Amino acid sequence: MTLVKVYVTYKRSILNPEAQAVHSALTRLGYNDINDVKLGKYFELTVADGKSKADLDQEINEICDKLLANYNMENYHYEIAETEAAQ
Amino acid sequence: MTLVKVYVTYKRSILNPEAQAVHSALTRLGYNDINDVKLGKYFELTVADGKSKADLDQEINEICDKLLANYNMENYHYEIAETEAAQ
Repeated sequence: MTLVKVYVTYKRSILNPEAQAVHSALTRLGYNDINDVKLGKYFELTVADGKSKADLDQEINEICDKLLANYNMENYHYEIAETEAAQ
Repeated sequence: MTLVKVYVTYKRSILNPEAQAVHSALTRLGYNDINDVKLGKYFELTVADGKSKADLDQEINEICDKLLANYNMENYHYEIAETEAAQ
């Protein structure tokens, strides 16, 4: 099995009120050295073995473009992590 | 500035309907080699310099325990990434 970690975050130009709420809550809790907070989605996809690296890259990009990330508002990047032993 | 990446995911025993919805959508789109989908939150905290590693670890753990992760349902882990040049 291959583990793919996908990170989806808002583009810089997009205002993220949720992240701002977290930032102001941290300030109220006294953590004044936090200068910025970004908030996004984190996916862990467990993929069956058998694909070449190129095919896997293509599939993950398709999945992100079609479903996991909104092209207009979000960026994504991913990491192909270690191969887990089949469970 | 120090960049801290925090990953918050549900504990194994917790059912995540959102992740299941993503998984069934992927199957409907024809991606049948995706065996499992986990979904969580991803934070990027930009922290002002000046703290020792130990102090930064303590602060991040406090922040996660108090605000970013729900102790009963979620796990968290974090990475202290490269120090960005001051912007």
